[in-house]
Amino acid sequence: MKTILGGVCAPKGYAAAGVEAGIKKNRKDMALVYSEVPAVCAGVFTTNLVKAWCVRRNKEIAATEQMVQAIVANAGCANACTGEEGKANNIKVAAAMAEALGLETDMVLTGATGVIGAQLPMDKLIEGTRLLKEAVTASAEAADDAAHAIMTTDTVAKQVACELEVQGKTVHIGGMVKGSGMIHPNMATMLCYMTTDIKIEKTLLQKALKAAIVDSFNMISVDGDTSTNDMAVIMANGMAGNEGIVAEDDDFAAFAKALKEVTMYLAKEMVRDGEGATKVIETRIHGAVSHEEAVIMAKSVITSELVKTMFFGEDANFGRVLCAMGYSGASFDPDHVTMKFMSNAGEILLMDDGTPIVFDEEKALAILKEQDIVVDVVLQEGDGEAVAWGSDLTHEYVTINGDYRS
Amino acid sequence: MKTILGGVCAPKGYAAAGVEAGIKKNRKDMALVYSEVPAVCAGVFTTNLVKAWCVRRNKEIAATEQMVQAIVANAGCANACTGEEGKANNIKVAAAMAEALGLETDMVLTGATGVIGAQLPMDKLIEGTRLLKEAVTASAEAADDAAHAIMTTDTVAKQVACELEVQGKTVHIGGMVKGSGMIHPNMATMLCYMTTDIKIEKTLLQKALKAAIVDSFNMISVDGDTSTNDMAVIMANGMAGNEGIVAEDDDFAAFAKALKEVTMYLAKEMVRDGEGATKVIETRIHGAVSHEEAVIMAKSVITSELVKTMFFGEDANFGRVLCAMGYSGASFDPDHVTMKFMSNAGEILLMDDGTPIVFDEEKALAILKEQDIVVDVVLQEGDGEAVAWGSDLTHEYVTINGDYRS
Repeated sequence: MKTILGGVCAPKGYAAAGVEAGIKKNRKDMALVYSEVPAVCAGVFTTNLVKAWCVRRNKEIAATEQMVQAIVANAGCANACTGEEGKANNIKVAAAMAEALGLETDMVLTGATGVIGAQLPMDKLIEGTRLLKEAVTASAEAADDAAHAIMTTDTVAKQVACELEVQGKTVHIGGMVKGSGMIHPNMATMLCYMTTDIKIEKTLLQKALKAAIVDSFNMISVDGDTSTNDMAVIMANGMAGNEGIVAEDDDFAAFAKALKEVTMYLAKEMVRDGEGATKVIETRIHGAVSHEEAVIMAKSVITSELVKTMFFGEDANFGRVLCAMGYSGASFDPDHVTMKFMSNAGEILLMDDGTPIVFDEEKALAILKEQDIVVDVVLQEGDGEAVAWGSDLTHEYVTINGDYRS
Repeated sequence: MKTILGGVCAPKGYAAAGVEAGIKKNRKDMALVYSEVPAVCAGVFTTNLVKAWCVRRNKEIAATEQMVQAIVANAGCANACTGEEGKANNIKVAAAMAEALGLETDMVLTGATGVIGAQLPMDKLIEGTRLLKEAVTASAEAADDAAHAIMTTDTVAKQVACELEVQGKTVHIGGMVKGSGMIHPNMATMLCYMTTDIKIEKTLLQKALKAAIVDSFNMISVDGDTSTNDMAVIMANGMAGNEGIVAEDDDFAAFAKALKEVTMYLAKEMVRDGEGATKVIETRIHGAVSHEEAVIMAKSVITSELVKTMFFGEDANFGRVLCAMGYSGASFDPDHVTMKFMSNAGEILLMDDGTPIVFDEEKALAILKEQDIVVDVVLQEGDGEAVAWGSDLTHEYVTINGDYRS
């Protein structure tokens, strides 16, 4: 896999746009991703029982054989908890975008992010679809515009693209994602739109997407809140010219691996740009009873408010990590735990086979001053392993979320 | 039930003390609760797999017919994750306190709170047991000293006492508790010590305690972290002179009700004094499928970082409440939810049978400016109800926990 520029426009036949529709003040707030030709699509969506209208509709469309050609998304209003009016508004946005592009309404997926419980400002969205049609271009700049237009409290646009050889042809994958609060995805993530020009069967595309997400978006957390609007959607338009992926062969494996690398990159970038975050905490659990138990412990550690404030405070109060493992529900013997903190500045042993080690506070501080910290825990239960990524919890998170609607 | 003064010393035959043993700087850090005569005891303890040595030992003692006469507790060091050395130290503290009081070691329970993963400063604790013996007195002042001595980041001492008539005699219940971080009790709570002079069988005392805790300490959360050191322990010394509670009759019910009121009071005070907290958020769920499902939803709401920062910001972004219910795992139809926010300043309807209501922002702000806020949610699934209490999430919480060990 080779990383390239161009985001969602890197694969052949895709164009994009990001425009100011006036939903938010003085910034881009509507995005379009468009494929020249019909594409198969796959998606994973929030497991929150409260689902935004765009999630409900996309999920229905992705479950059929329907080909799609466009995704239109807006920031500033989630269109979740909005009753029948919100349902109708969501369809109107898809219809307006479809009309502007000369497509059937069902070929346009929608996405939304922002305040829950407020109705979409429909005049602005309808005008926005017209502006998107005018602006849509196949260029790296357009992909960047689109990535900016889906941002809410994000501080940087997050996108990536790569290329790989499949069936003798060069195929591409591009993606963009937004965070950066209400991030605790569960079989899904906050808005993530990916494009690829590979030719692949829909069921295999869905399979590769699910596998990628389990180890990436499902292993990160900013604040433990699973959003109502989470979705990760990929379109595959087949324009790379490869013969077609029709079985779980080596070519499928290569594509699935590249897709996982793309989602892992985007997931970690989402944590790095988590609301108020100053650090990325990677928690590695080894020697658990099973992979599932390791996942439970790793996620419990990255979700703990006390662990997160500890890393913000750069304080090696490692007992909080053990405490979060202890209440996670996973089983292990606390008397046989070995724990290290690591970063570019070195590593420090804090607990050895259940016994706390007297450590050099200055060395610990130097390690914790880095932006990327690894918590490495070794248990003696079995060979279950997992890695999860979380942000620290900062004053800035409280400021952002105490004042979100204004 | 009538509230009285005196805390843990209010029931007959109890004395207490709180002294400066030098574990923390310039403040009381060791507490003693003492009964003149042997008392039956009951306790509930943390469900965290990682348990402090005091929890492990008390749990063993409380499971036997062993009568107890004293509880000695220290702040500043949790004696959790401390290996075999920590286990031996915990027994040494109990033995030193027992020797000073002329008791058997097994008649003394221990408690600890503070940093996890550090060893107890034993010289100070042993000297502390001597100071406690000198200071122990049956007075309201001594009860207050003890309540101060178990504090960590608490800003006020939290205690209560009450009296009621049982079998023609006046019986008393007294209690003290400490918070105020790592508060998300699960079948237990942070240090809570209660005394009563009622004569009651041990199994009934345990039954009353468990029932009280399910609706009080198990329904509060400050930060979603379940501590390694949680315990709620009650001693009953029988000195009220009542005949004795030997069955689940009306007298038992009256005592159990009073004990629940005591634990509810202490639980809410713990939330009010939660780390950095400026508000108490009471979440009431009505009309759920079952009580259990209502509990799951109420706790999900009070634990959500986004809900907690919203109340800190005094912003009626009610969709976050619905979102937290949606990912809780409980089942309900989001299209039939009615929600109000209430406080001493009035109430405001935010969602009516699934439809968001355009509300008066000024009125909403006036309601949210109060210290005590009620979130009232009505579902249409059944008759399950539950109430939970949580604090808001503030800059001060981050400051306290980013800098805990120093």
